[in-house]
Amino acid sequence: MSVAKIGAASYRLKNVGIKGTAAVVGPKEGQGPLGAYFDKVWVSETNHETSFERAERALLEEALNLAVKKANCSWDDVDLVLGGDLLDQIVSTNFVARQHERPLLGLFAACAVFTEALGLGALLIAGQGPKRVAVGAVSHHMAAERQFRFPIELGYQRTPTAAWTATAAGAAILGVAQHEDLLVDTVTFGRVIDYGSKDPNDMGSAMAPAALDSIERHLAATGDRIEDYDGIFTGDLGVFGIDLLQELGSAAGLRFGDRLNDCGKSLYYLKEQDVHNGASGPGCSAGVFSGYLYQRLKKGDWQRLLLVATGALFSPTTYQQGETIPCIAHAVTVSSPGAHAR
Amino acid sequence: MSVAKIGAASYRLKNVGIKGTAAVVGPKEGQGPLGAYFDKVWVSETNHETSFERAERALLEEALNLAVKKANCSWDDVDLVLGGDLLDQIVSTNFVARQHERPLLGLFAACAVFTEALGLGALLIAGQGPKRVAVGAVSHHMAAERQFRFPIELGYQRTPTAAWTATAAGAAILGVAQHEDLLVDTVTFGRVIDYGSKDPNDMGSAMAPAALDSIERHLAATGDRIEDYDGIFTGDLGVFGIDLLQELGSAAGLRFGDRLNDCGKSLYYLKEQDVHNGASGPGCSAGVFSGYLYQRLKKGDWQRLLLVATGALFSPTTYQQGETIPCIAHAVTVSSPGAHAR
Repeated sequence: MSVAKIGAASYRLKNVGIKGTAAVVGPKEGQGPLGAYFDKVWVSETNHETSFERAERALLEEALNLAVKKANCSWDDVDLVLGGDLLDQIVSTNFVARQHERPLLGLFAACAVFTEALGLGALLIAGQGPKRVAVGAVSHHMAAERQFRFPIELGYQRTPTAAWTATAAGAAILGVAQHEDLLVDTVTFGRVIDYGSKDPNDMGSAMAPAALDSIERHLAATGDRIEDYDGIFTGDLGVFGIDLLQELGSAAGLRFGDRLNDCGKSLYYLKEQDVHNGASGPGCSAGVFSGYLYQRLKKGDWQRLLLVATGALFSPTTYQQGETIPCIAHAVTVSSPGAHAR
Repeated sequence: MSVAKIGAASYRLKNVGIKGTAAVVGPKEGQGPLGAYFDKVWVSETNHETSFERAERALLEEALNLAVKKANCSWDDVDLVLGGDLLDQIVSTNFVARQHERPLLGLFAACAVFTEALGLGALLIAGQGPKRVAVGAVSHHMAAERQFRFPIELGYQRTPTAAWTATAAGAAILGVAQHEDLLVDTVTFGRVIDYGSKDPNDMGSAMAPAALDSIERHLAATGDRIEDYDGIFTGDLGVFGIDLLQELGSAAGLRFGDRLNDCGKSLYYLKEQDVHNGASGPGCSAGVFSGYLYQRLKKGDWQRLLLVATGALFSPTTYQQGETIPCIAHAVTVSSPGAHAR
């Protein structure tokens, strides 16, 4: 294991592997096009929990426990847990940590927190710190709606650009790579980018410039070309955001073509499931990666993937105070051992 | 530089130094017993900013800028910024990152975030990742009160055990140790501990068990005795919390004696300034360390210090839902180069 700093905020890591992942999602997510890839699909949004917030915790707890199991280890083997969620004071992550009782580094990057955790966990392992790290992120549709917008019981209308916060959790266990483990081999941490967007119902457009900034810096630092990736998956830009990113990319000389895709655009049948811009929430990229993308890579459909989770870093208070929406994106390359050798 | 894992969540670091620190505080903090140790004392709580939230941002921005300057470097030299605050979606940390434009890893551990950032930053540097890391934390009395309790304009009565959220920011620049830099030499990350406390007006008592857990594990992993430290400073347990920690320590066979102290107990003249339990908030341990403790170590008054910032990880929502208050504490040893050699 080793780390090489290859840019202002980019690192090349040797021998950090993903030992296992798990994704647990709500019924709507299970009915989407990726339904078959999730480890567990809840039959209801609350799954017998007595509040949406408790349900969010239960989702994360299930995903983490399942990931530990699938990585063939026990919680005692986990040196450090990294993760976050969207609820104030990241209470889902913090409350779940009472159960697993492992040392916790709580993170917040809104919907970008999964790659913040994944990249940071991998960097710590490569730097000879913790030997095994659990990373996870979660969101719950109803819990997020009532905190950020309106209680869903109000039945308010959503704008055409609004995203649907996913009820989903994803978790991964990182450690020293062995055998056929997928590798986390390059990481670029994001800067906060603010193009002056003020519309919390169009966060895809607000976040697209942050995604571009991190992808550009990642490619420059690693020397990779777009063609070196079988897929570049942003977190939750959705339909509008991904279109804007294509445009911004073109203007910057980056032709993403159909290699560029988005977890938020992929999670639902957009029209049939009436989700407007697509999925959002920390659980979106966490669940889509830990379920779908990880399995596609493991099966050998793809060799190399760039995951760029995106986050809008505003709060209801800053919105009400007339502030713009600062955004961030953290980029992590995940590849199969074969791809790594080239 | 190197890392050695010496316990479940403890690390011994070689050659990570503190290049400079800065603390900027509000007028009440400036009038306290540590007033002379802060780099800048604001003349009013808002310092011409148009909202308490903007004031909180300005505090952090000033502290970070000043720390960069005092470390004799520029923002371009900073590879990574780590930090957090108490406002929802850690908007102070995130908004300030628009100004410095450096890669950001947002953290949340409530009032324990300063040592989360300090320990994590040091571990990353020792692991050959970033070469220079800025860490910072902030809180603002009025912004915190209206988010967590009541707007201060209500003039509500505070309970005898209530803490006074400090208007303060502290920041430090970490890098490869040179010359007479203070060293960050051991780190223990905390677990989430919940003894079932439900009173958000007595967070010192809620957090004391988490502090004990981290101190016990830190001593066990490092082999250090209490006498090896000139001071063990918890974050913001205050009068009631520190008394409870003394008791819990005694029961566990740890005689802290007068080596145990608390940033929250130290920041104000408790009676004269009418702050009841003492200071709290991420800015409390950040400001007290970056101002007072750092200077005492630099002057040679002390050789070795254990800083154990403490955080209560509840939210107004979890409180209203009848949940208990989970807590965490992250422990970091800071020592003078001489002490290190022994």
